[in-house]
Amino acid sequence: MRTTICERFGVEFPLFAFSHCRDVVAAVTNAGGFGVLGAVAYSPGQLDTELSWIDEHVGGRPYGVDVLVPGKIDASAASRNTSLTDHIPQRHRDFVAHLLGKYGVGGAEAFTRATAGRADEMGRRVTAEGATGLIDVALKHPIGLIASALGPPPPEMTAKARQAGVPVAALVGTVEHARRQVAAGADVIVAQGSEAGGHTGEISTMVLVPQVVDAVDVPVLAAGGIAGGRQMAAALALGAEGVWCGSVWLTTEEAETLPLVKQKMLAATSSDTVRSRSRTGKPARQLRSAWTDEWDGAPESPGALPMPLQMLLAEGAMARIGRAAESGSPGAGELATYFVGQVVGQMNQIRPARRVVHDMIEEFAAAVERLDRLTGT
Amino acid sequence: MRTTICERFGVEFPLFAFSHCRDVVAAVTNAGGFGVLGAVAYSPGQLDTELSWIDEHVGGRPYGVDVLVPGKIDASAASRNTSLTDHIPQRHRDFVAHLLGKYGVGGAEAFTRATAGRADEMGRRVTAEGATGLIDVALKHPIGLIASALGPPPPEMTAKARQAGVPVAALVGTVEHARRQVAAGADVIVAQGSEAGGHTGEISTMVLVPQVVDAVDVPVLAAGGIAGGRQMAAALALGAEGVWCGSVWLTTEEAETLPLVKQKMLAATSSDTVRSRSRTGKPARQLRSAWTDEWDGAPESPGALPMPLQMLLAEGAMARIGRAAESGSPGAGELATYFVGQVVGQMNQIRPARRVVHDMIEEFAAAVERLDRLTGT
Repeated sequence: MRTTICERFGVEFPLFAFSHCRDVVAAVTNAGGFGVLGAVAYSPGQLDTELSWIDEHVGGRPYGVDVLVPGKIDASAASRNTSLTDHIPQRHRDFVAHLLGKYGVGGAEAFTRATAGRADEMGRRVTAEGATGLIDVALKHPIGLIASALGPPPPEMTAKARQAGVPVAALVGTVEHARRQVAAGADVIVAQGSEAGGHTGEISTMVLVPQVVDAVDVPVLAAGGIAGGRQMAAALALGAEGVWCGSVWLTTEEAETLPLVKQKMLAATSSDTVRSRSRTGKPARQLRSAWTDEWDGAPESPGALPMPLQMLLAEGAMARIGRAAESGSPGAGELATYFVGQVVGQMNQIRPARRVVHDMIEEFAAAVERLDRLTGT
Repeated sequence: MRTTICERFGVEFPLFAFSHCRDVVAAVTNAGGFGVLGAVAYSPGQLDTELSWIDEHVGGRPYGVDVLVPGKIDASAASRNTSLTDHIPQRHRDFVAHLLGKYGVGGAEAFTRATAGRADEMGRRVTAEGATGLIDVALKHPIGLIASALGPPPPEMTAKARQAGVPVAALVGTVEHARRQVAAGADVIVAQGSEAGGHTGEISTMVLVPQVVDAVDVPVLAAGGIAGGRQMAAALALGAEGVWCGSVWLTTEEAETLPLVKQKMLAATSSDTVRSRSRTGKPARQLRSAWTDEWDGAPESPGALPMPLQMLLAEGAMARIGRAAESGSPGAGELATYFVGQVVGQMNQIRPARRVVHDMIEEFAAAVERLDRLTGT
C-alpha cells in the first residue's frame, strides 16, 4: 500500500498495533505492520529489557512506544513527598474492602504493603516526569514512534523526540483536541472513537475521523471499532492513512491477558462493554463486570476518584482479584475486567498475532475489491 | 451503482433518506436516492394528503414510509378507554410545569386542553393498532418500502405489506435484534449505530454493521454517523448494501425544522448531542439542551416515564417551548432540542436536499478513487 504513513514509517500495511505485550509488538512488526509497546506498566529498567528483546526479534523493522501522559492529573497527588496511596480517602478504601469481601476475594484491606508500593510506582509513571523517564529509555532504542494519550505531550518530551528524529503521535477524541495536539507538535494524530477500549471520548469513529482529517494537516490514523479488514477499509474510506488497533490483540495466542479475562472476552458480545471511571478515574471502556456495576450503580459507592488515585486503588484490587480468579474464586471472576473496545463482540477465537494481521490484510483486499465491483470501477 | 439494494429498489444510488418532510422525501427520490417519509406525526388522513403530494412530485420514482412500532409499550397506557395523558403522574406534570416556569415559557400546567388532545392522538399512533391505520393508508399509494423501528413489526403489518408486494425494513441496534427481525419477516435490515439521531442503541456503526451483515441473509443498510460520501463509502466497505440517513436532512432548505433548532444544529459540534430518555421514554440521541440536562441531572427530576407517556409529556411541552422560542424567549431557546445524530458536527450550512445528495455522490466517488489509489488497484 502507498499511504503517507506507509512511506513515513516504512511499513507495508498501515496497521499500528498497540499492546503491552512485546511478543505481539514483534509479531505485528514482523508481519508488515507497526507494533507499539504500551510502556505504562513498566519501570524504566523493565522497559529497557522489553525493548532490547524486541530489538533482537524484529531485525531492524519499525516499532514504537506508547506512554500515558494525562493532561490533567490531581497535582497534589503527584507531589513527591508523600505516598500517593496516602491521598486515597478511607471511604474509598472501605468500599474496595467491602467489594473484595462481598465477592469472596478475601483480605480486609484495600492495599497490602506490596500493592501499595507497586501502586505508588505506577502512579508516578503517569506524570510528565514519570513519562519522561520512560522516554529517555525508549530513545536509546531504534524506535520509530512515541505515542501519548490523554492530553498534549509535555514540551520536553516532544523536544527530546524531535532531537532524536522520532515522530510523536497523539491520541484524541475530538477535533478540538486534534488541533491542540498538532499545535503542540504532534506529527501524527490517532483519532479514536468512543467505541474504542481504554480511555475514550464520546464521538464515534465514523463521525470523528473525517472531521479530524479535515481539521489537521498531519496524517491521521483511525482507532476504535477496528479489528478486521472491512473496518480497516472503512477507516481509509473515511480519510485515515492507516489504523491503530488495541483490543484485537488481547485474545491472541501471545497476549498475556489473564486466562479468565481472555475467556470472558471470547464470550462477550459488543453489548458487554461499558465506559466507566471505575478503573482509572477517567472514562475508559472495558468489559462490564461486577466491579464496574458496583462502582457505577451501587447506592453505597463513593464514586470514582480522580486519576491517578482511582487507578492505584483499582490496580491494587485487580491484582488480587486476578489471582483469586485464577484460583477459581467465582466472585473474583465476576469482578474481573479489562480494557477492551466494542469489537470484543467479534473476537471469538484465539489466533496468533501474525494470523490476525494476515486475516486483516485479506479481508481488507476483499472489501476494496467488493467496493470496486459495486461501483463498477 | 450495482448493489442488491439498487436493483431491488430501482435506485441509482443506495441512499435512503428518512425525513418527516415530504419535500425532502421527494427531492431525494428525484435526485436518484430513496426518500422515506416518517409517518408518526401524521393522522391517517394527513398521511394520505402527504403521500398524494409525493406521488404528484416524484413521477413514479420509488419512495417509502416509516412507522414507529415499539416492541414494548406500557400496555395499560395504551388501553382505549381512558385518555393516555391521565396516566401521567402529577409529579411529572409538576416537573414540566416547573421547567416551563423556570425558563420563562409560561403557563402553569404541563398540558393545555389542545396539547392533551394532540398528545393522546399521537400516543395512539405508536401502538400496533395505530401503526396499522397508517399502513392501510400508505398501501393505497405506490410505496416501495415500509420501515419500522423499535421492535419486530406486528405480524399483521408484515402480512399486509407482503400481500401488497411491499418490502419491509426494520431498524436494529444489535445483532440479536437483527436476527429476530429477519425471523419476523423483515426483508431489509437497517443496522443503526449508537451515533445515530433518535432512538438508538449503544453499539457504534463501525462495530455493528459487519456483525449484522455476517448474521443475516437479507441486504443491510448502515445508519448512524453517515452524512457524507466518505461515510457512505465506509459503510459499503463494512459490508452494507446502502445507507440510511436521517439527521443530515434536518438542516436542508426544505426541512421544517424549527428555525431556532436549525440554527442550534448548524452551530453544534459532535460533542453536543446526548442519548436521553427525556424526550420519548426510550434512549434517543438529540441535541443536548436545558431540557435533557434538567431531566437527566436535576436533583428534583422525577426521571423519564416509559414510552409513550414521556413522549406525550415532552411533545406537549416542546410544542409550547417551540412557540415561545420563536417569539424570542431565551429560556425557551435553552430548552429547545430535537433528535439528531453526532453528524450534527458536520452539518454547517443550509443546502437544498438535492444538493446534499449530489455532494454525497461526489464525495463517495472521490473516496473510492482514493482507496484505489492507496491500494494500487
